[in-house]
Amino acid sequence: NLPTRSPTSIVPPKVLGTVAVTAAVAFWSQTTGAQAECEGSKKVPKTPESTAEEDKQRKLDGLTEDSPMRLRMEEFVKRLQMEITSELEKLDGKAKFKVDRWTRPEGGDGISMVMQEGAVFEKAGVAVSVVYGMLPPAAIAQMRAKHPNIADTKEPMPFFVTGISSVIHPNNPNAPTVHFNYRYFELGAQGEDGKPVSWWFGGGSDLTPAILYEEDAVHFHEVIKEACDKHDPRYYPDFKKWCDEYFYIPHRQEHRGIGGIFFDDLDNKSPEELFGFVQSCGHAFLKQYIPIMEKRKDLPFTDEDRHWQQLRRGRYVEFNLVYDRGTKFGLLTPGARTESILMTMPLTARWEYMHEPNVQAHGKLMDALRAPRDWIPFSRSSTSSRSRSSSNSSRRK
Amino acid sequence: NLPTRSPTSIVPPKVLGTVAVTAAVAFWSQTTGAQAECEGSKKVPKTPESTAEEDKQRKLDGLTEDSPMRLRMEEFVKRLQMEITSELEKLDGKAKFKVDRWTRPEGGDGISMVMQEGAVFEKAGVAVSVVYGMLPPAAIAQMRAKHPNIADTKEPMPFFVTGISSVIHPNNPNAPTVHFNYRYFELGAQGEDGKPVSWWFGGGSDLTPAILYEEDAVHFHEVIKEACDKHDPRYYPDFKKWCDEYFYIPHRQEHRGIGGIFFDDLDNKSPEELFGFVQSCGHAFLKQYIPIMEKRKDLPFTDEDRHWQQLRRGRYVEFNLVYDRGTKFGLLTPGARTESILMTMPLTARWEYMHEPNVQAHGKLMDALRAPRDWIPFSRSSTSSRSRSSSNSSRRK
Repeated sequence: NLPTRSPTSIVPPKVLGTVAVTAAVAFWSQTTGAQAECEGSKKVPKTPESTAEEDKQRKLDGLTEDSPMRLRMEEFVKRLQMEITSELEKLDGKAKFKVDRWTRPEGGDGISMVMQEGAVFEKAGVAVSVVYGMLPPAAIAQMRAKHPNIADTKEPMPFFVTGISSVIHPNNPNAPTVHFNYRYFELGAQGEDGKPVSWWFGGGSDLTPAILYEEDAVHFHEVIKEACDKHDPRYYPDFKKWCDEYFYIPHRQEHRGIGGIFFDDLDNKSPEELFGFVQSCGHAFLKQYIPIMEKRKDLPFTDEDRHWQQLRRGRYVEFNLVYDRGTKFGLLTPGARTESILMTMPLTARWEYMHEPNVQAHGKLMDALRAPRDWIPFSRSSTSSRSRSSSNSSRRK
Repeated sequence: NLPTRSPTSIVPPKVLGTVAVTAAVAFWSQTTGAQAECEGSKKVPKTPESTAEEDKQRKLDGLTEDSPMRLRMEEFVKRLQMEITSELEKLDGKAKFKVDRWTRPEGGDGISMVMQEGAVFEKAGVAVSVVYGMLPPAAIAQMRAKHPNIADTKEPMPFFVTGISSVIHPNNPNAPTVHFNYRYFELGAQGEDGKPVSWWFGGGSDLTPAILYEEDAVHFHEVIKEACDKHDPRYYPDFKKWCDEYFYIPHRQEHRGIGGIFFDDLDNKSPEELFGFVQSCGHAFLKQYIPIMEKRKDLPFTDEDRHWQQLRRGRYVEFNLVYDRGTKFGLLTPGARTESILMTMPLTARWEYMHEPNVQAHGKLMDALRAPRDWIPFSRSSTSSRSRSSSNSSRRK
């Protein structure tokens, strides 16, 4: 018997029996059943329920810099969600985010916020989730490849994940779709304070224009490079490359967009340092995206531009459903919240057989999607935002 | 270096270096390189090239009932394609099929026919393909599970596949989407006449309405049941069940449509008998679908109906990209012809966050998608097409 869902309520206070899966936070989970009985035990390993219960008290007592990282990251992503959705609502001026809050009986909660058919945004989703659960051995085995300190076990282990993820599709074909996601994972809560055996950060942000303005691509990359450079000079070049590799659609021989950064399994510095890096990235998002939107949201466009945008939306759907790990694992997770996973889908999309791009109008975008470009050296070779792109960035000429 | 493609020509006479993959014909292939040299050898195993070459001669000499099954099936699917596309063009009255012919240098060819933005059809694709190739050991191992006479080998084996596949999306939300696919597979061509070590048939047809008319579902099932019953009384009940199981979207807890039949790996009777069965099914298609279209193509519909249809198209995309084996394996096959695989996509689709179906208008469809129904007993319990569905089939009341 498949579990029933509550698909329709506006703000369900509790979505029982579901596992939180934000768009790009991939994980497997199972409830802990019998283990829930051993509360009060101070022995290793802790159950997700007992850790969640203790964390609740910690939050009531007030968080400090000494609080467990999971609680600080949770606080960060929840604040960031408020900040970003508030700015997006201001920019839109018409639509408001629909807010769905849910909790898991085993521990954890989440807030999915989606705006649809706004003045500026066709569809914008920003979701946070917090999950305390048990990870099956098959999933643990996969993680051991990147985190060798995880013991080889046939037993499920407690895990924790919290993250923020977002996909924003604007109405205007001149305005690009954007995606970002930052997350923190813990495996194997142990001891009095529920310290993890292993932990890591992942995330990134990337831009998917339907119409390429090179200066927008440069701006998007420059802002996130600045955030990266504050923490490690290798971050931007390494994570830019990782992003180009990840957001690729093999069957189209195209990249999804013009890139950004992508990273995962990051645990090679102290949690404190890496948390600082992830905070810088998260706070950079509005600086990456809002100036582009202000320039593009009201530009005139033709029916052909809109048509082309719809075809590009089709490619976005193809990437997300066929290749995106978060979406795939999410959809395969029994009991996952499908509406939260698929809030990343565009409102509308189009597929035409053997469609031929208009080379004049869209050749430049297609070139950039076929061969990822180094946007930063590109910007450094010229002097101003305008002259930087004078030769060919203004497609309207 | 990824191979380049010729994405734009109207009727490419040769799509070099591609592997034919029709929408639901899943296979893996690799070119035979060095093996192509050993032509003239009469020893086992034959190369795909030599079998293809000999088959060309057989076709020039004229096919008889003694010709290899692969040639008779190829002839059947190519004739069926002409017959079906001709009827669909007549029904549409406005649009014509665009015809793309391709050949593979290693042996094989295909014809993809797609009609777009017609008077009746939003998008209709009917494709045939013929492929002679080499199958890698991993793919052979999977097939051995169903065909134990296939030897355990670490070497690639020659294979052959031919099939017809089609997805048809009408404009009118009252008119259902339909899919059908019939295919014949051979593995391990050997000996003078290139007889296979193993062979099987697969296929089926199924209906996906956006608005449920129960009498249409009954008609669709009755016609294919009649075709099945001529060959084996177990076929319809077994393959109807298989269809319901296959076309299921777990993350939505919905079936894709109201079913039909689905079968694969069918080799438990003589090739002659099974070919007869597949021919009956193929010839039944127009009888299954055209009468429904004639009833529904010009019915009035509301904006809400169109809106709902677009959301249902989104579910079709989800099934095809996330679960359909033919599509998945096709997209993962290096060099496959993506445009042929994705001709099954609707022209347009829609995703809304937390969309709530209008129970009055669409509750009946959703009930049928959540719990597959036995359409034939349903029809037998009443007397006429009208009274059969008098209680609740006419949603317009």
